Amino acid sequence: MVTDAYGSRREFLRKVGAAGGAGVLWATMGALGLAPDARAAQPARAYVPPRAGDFTDGRKAPRVVVLGAGVAGLTTAYELAKAGYDCRILEAKARPGGRNWTVRAGTEERELNGGTQRAEFSAGQYLNAGPARIAQHMVTLDYCRELGVPIEPFANQNADAYVYLDGVGTPLRHRTVKADAHGYVSELLAKAVDRNALDKELTAEDRERLLAFLGDFGAIGGRADDRAYRGGPRRGYRTPPGAAAATGDPYGELPSLAEYFARGSGRYLSFEVDYDQAMMMFQPVGGMDRIVRAFVDRIGERRISYGCAVREIRDRGTGVEVRYADARGREHVERADFCVAALPPHVLARTAHNLGPAVQSALRTPAPLAVGKLGLEYRRRWWEEDHRIYGGITETDLPLTHVWYPSHGFHSARGVLVGYYHYREDALEFGELPPRERIARAVSLGERIHGPAHREELASGFAVAWHRIPHIEGGWIEWPENSGAAYDLLNQPAGRVYFAGDWLTHYIGWQAGAIGSARRAVSLLHERSVSA
Amino acid sequence: MVTDAYGSRREFLRKVGAAGGAGVLWATMGALGLAPDARAAQPARAYVPPRAGDFTDGRKAPRVVVLGAGVAGLTTAYELAKAGYDCRILEAKARPGGRNWTVRAGTEERELNGGTQRAEFSAGQYLNAGPARIAQHMVTLDYCRELGVPIEPFANQNADAYVYLDGVGTPLRHRTVKADAHGYVSELLAKAVDRNALDKELTAEDRERLLAFLGDFGAIGGRADDRAYRGGPRRGYRTPPGAAAATGDPYGELPSLAEYFARGSGRYLSFEVDYDQAMMMFQPVGGMDRIVRAFVDRIGERRISYGCAVREIRDRGTGVEVRYADARGREHVERADFCVAALPPHVLARTAHNLGPAVQSALRTPAPLAVGKLGLEYRRRWWEEDHRIYGGITETDLPLTHVWYPSHGFHSARGVLVGYYHYREDALEFGELPPRERIARAVSLGERIHGPAHREELASGFAVAWHRIPHIEGGWIEWPENSGAAYDLLNQPAGRVYFAGDWLTHYIGWQAGAIGSARRAVSLLHERSVSA
Repeated sequence: MVTDAYGSRREFLRKVGAAGGAGVLWATMGALGLAPDARAAQPARAYVPPRAGDFTDGRKAPRVVVLGAGVAGLTTAYELAKAGYDCRILEAKARPGGRNWTVRAGTEERELNGGTQRAEFSAGQYLNAGPARIAQHMVTLDYCRELGVPIEPFANQNADAYVYLDGVGTPLRHRTVKADAHGYVSELLAKAVDRNALDKELTAEDRERLLAFLGDFGAIGGRADDRAYRGGPRRGYRTPPGAAAATGDPYGELPSLAEYFARGSGRYLSFEVDYDQAMMMFQPVGGMDRIVRAFVDRIGERRISYGCAVREIRDRGTGVEVRYADARGREHVERADFCVAALPPHVLARTAHNLGPAVQSALRTPAPLAVGKLGLEYRRRWWEEDHRIYGGITETDLPLTHVWYPSHGFHSARGVLVGYYHYREDALEFGELPPRERIARAVSLGERIHGPAHREELASGFAVAWHRIPHIEGGWIEWPENSGAAYDLLNQPAGRVYFAGDWLTHYIGWQAGAIGSARRAVSLLHERSVSA
Repeated sequence: MVTDAYGSRREFLRKVGAAGGAGVLWATMGALGLAPDARAAQPARAYVPPRAGDFTDGRKAPRVVVLGAGVAGLTTAYELAKAGYDCRILEAKARPGGRNWTVRAGTEERELNGGTQRAEFSAGQYLNAGPARIAQHMVTLDYCRELGVPIEPFANQNADAYVYLDGVGTPLRHRTVKADAHGYVSELLAKAVDRNALDKELTAEDRERLLAFLGDFGAIGGRADDRAYRGGPRRGYRTPPGAAAATGDPYGELPSLAEYFARGSGRYLSFEVDYDQAMMMFQPVGGMDRIVRAFVDRIGERRISYGCAVREIRDRGTGVEVRYADARGREHVERADFCVAALPPHVLARTAHNLGPAVQSALRTPAPLAVGKLGLEYRRRWWEEDHRIYGGITETDLPLTHVWYPSHGFHSARGVLVGYYHYREDALEFGELPPRERIARAVSLGERIHGPAHREELASGFAVAWHRIPHIEGGWIEWPENSGAAYDLLNQPAGRVYFAGDWLTHYIGWQAGAIGSARRAVSLLHERSVSA
């Protein structure tokens, strides 16, 4: 199994934490004891969308009630509609999209136990508060194509963005941190090869090839120079090389090998080689919710009822009944042939149902994660003008964790920076503060990285604490160890009720997961309907 | 000096060859004996544009004849105009821009000793035949901002583009090649540390930190597993992980350590950490020649004379005379106070002048490089649809060298692929063929990488052999070893004649070089004029 590479469970969990949980590719599920080995080797079947012609004997496609207008619910209704299913979506919030949420001027949100925030962004400025990037191998891009949603690159990696470690105090460019890692690793390995420490693994020919590779990979000296790494152009320049004798003013001092690894800045280097994070990545032009809008337009607004919170799900054997309260608190019962419950598991777990104690126990198994994301609009793109950073992510051990520079609107007047994107304790602590104070604290920390512009040029901010957003209550979920049985159970229908969401996939926290799970539920439901 | 990192001169030259000459950052000039150490540490002075007010005693700004409407010539005229200089540009070709050349429907070019090619691209499709990418630290972006040329990301790195080695026969994803390099390097180094082979360099604490770093950097096992690298998610999946039990279908077999380094695929990994190639990079929206167009609009078309080939440059002590032939072959003499010669050195070297034998010898020193670039328009974006490659570069040991996928128009109907971007022998060999045969040969080689779509979906092509383009005659130039005196001489005015071009900088083959050199010439000329 490929997942063996992650080593022990503890090691894996440490890594997930280190990777920062920007959505976790859960291909490592085997390591958590969730996926039996026999099935781990089983590739996904190609998806075949339902077609109206699949009902051969003139039968009418069934009626389906979909719970939740997040990406899983929208995909479900959109795909089922292709075969003429009569779908209705009940959505508790006043807007579609779930975590696919683009905050713009006038966006309002009331937090659990909190006040209401209102975005004061300028026209055209926005924050993708939830999903913000799409890897090119993800099914999400297929929907962008199918739905006619234009895409543009998302800068998920930038050699000129910073690594800021508070103990170091000076921001380092990613390229500097990377050059030093490659350099020192290559120097040490080449020395070990020269000392014949790896003759058990390497033939004379292997050694020669490896040394040639390391010379290039690490930009290190030859044997006569004892393979020394001494820096070089890859570290970057404060003033770039130029005309005539201007060879450039390189960045700072080269740390010693011991200093380099003591800093720990190298821990930020593996993010960009992750399967779900490596460049190229993309975003819809104009905001991630362009996908939501396109889904809703295809499904039809009339099929979506907003402000409708589900109170009870009953499987009646020959159909389902969903009791819900509308925006004015009045209760209704929706009847359908099937139900697809595309709500977060922790929300479903407190909804009444008759699906049995095993389902209830399974729904209580995954744990929601506290996640915070802050959008800061600036009157000037000082990160481009003063720092020459065009998109990408600054990583820091400050409680901000990640700072994102916008991937669009380069050279324009204004822009929205992601002032923090953080998880767990950091997200909980910031979430406790009123939004105004979250912003003040974030800006004062950001000044350590970027200097006064981080405060002085600020126009306004909008601070999302996902664990405090009603009806969502978390950034994504985590399955505890050995919860494979619960995962498997919820991936099967409970009578006429199907579950769908990124939490039932190996792409937790990604729209690709929500879509993949919805497609699977649609396929199972459709096969059953057609063969009924 | 930072350039020591490159080791010996021979080693450096090998590396330049390996890096592929996609423009070479010439910060390594010290290694070639070109820049005296004392000056190598000298950072570039901040550029101050000339202003009309600089002439304090009511004097008129001088008249300047600029030779060449490439980026260096255009920058010169644009900057001098800020102080009211009366500039005229003589351009031998029928269009401005020099190597900044965007080929569109109807573009025609007659090669030296060859026929005329005419681009049959569809409306909106184009090939940036010369410069095509701009690093975010480059001054070129400042001009995009100043001139109002919108920019968008250029995909210079893509984990899902291929490395195709003809001996391997199957295209490998960049991510796979990278994961294996990180994995095996980390495994070997961790083993050497475990064997105490590096105790001279590392304290116990260093060892612990290094091993923690390698566990993450290489995704390798722990000590109990002998630090083994066994692949993992970073290598990528044929079928991505998905819903329920679908853990994904990983790419191929993991090569053994010996196989991996025997393949040599790792040599393609250092490109993306080069100072001038690391992401993020950018391109003007709509074609690189938007920069040229913006320059020309600001300078004024009336100041540029096309079809005017320079025959002779004479420094008259109190002024300059430039004899040239116009488009109809009629000779004229242009008189001015100063001349800025922004032509390729190999073109200047065969132009008559009275600047002395040392200048003539210096002009003959740099050698032009054969470079070829092929634009292939396809009726379908099969690289996105069939291969899920959205921009980026496939590297190959086939004579194609680099294949570029377009960085714009994602999900649209058509696109222009760079079918090859190659140098030296490959460029010379392809250049010998008529364009039709260049295309046929390139497409048949491309099929080995991408399969039949590479041929079947082709709409049309345009094959540029830069060494055969009149008045340019090369992709860029190379300074031979120990040519520092020539470089230094031409970076000083020869009487009233100044030289400018990327070839006089540490950014050879980049517009940033041309701009930097032009700014320097402008500053020297302006200081002299003001203080005269």
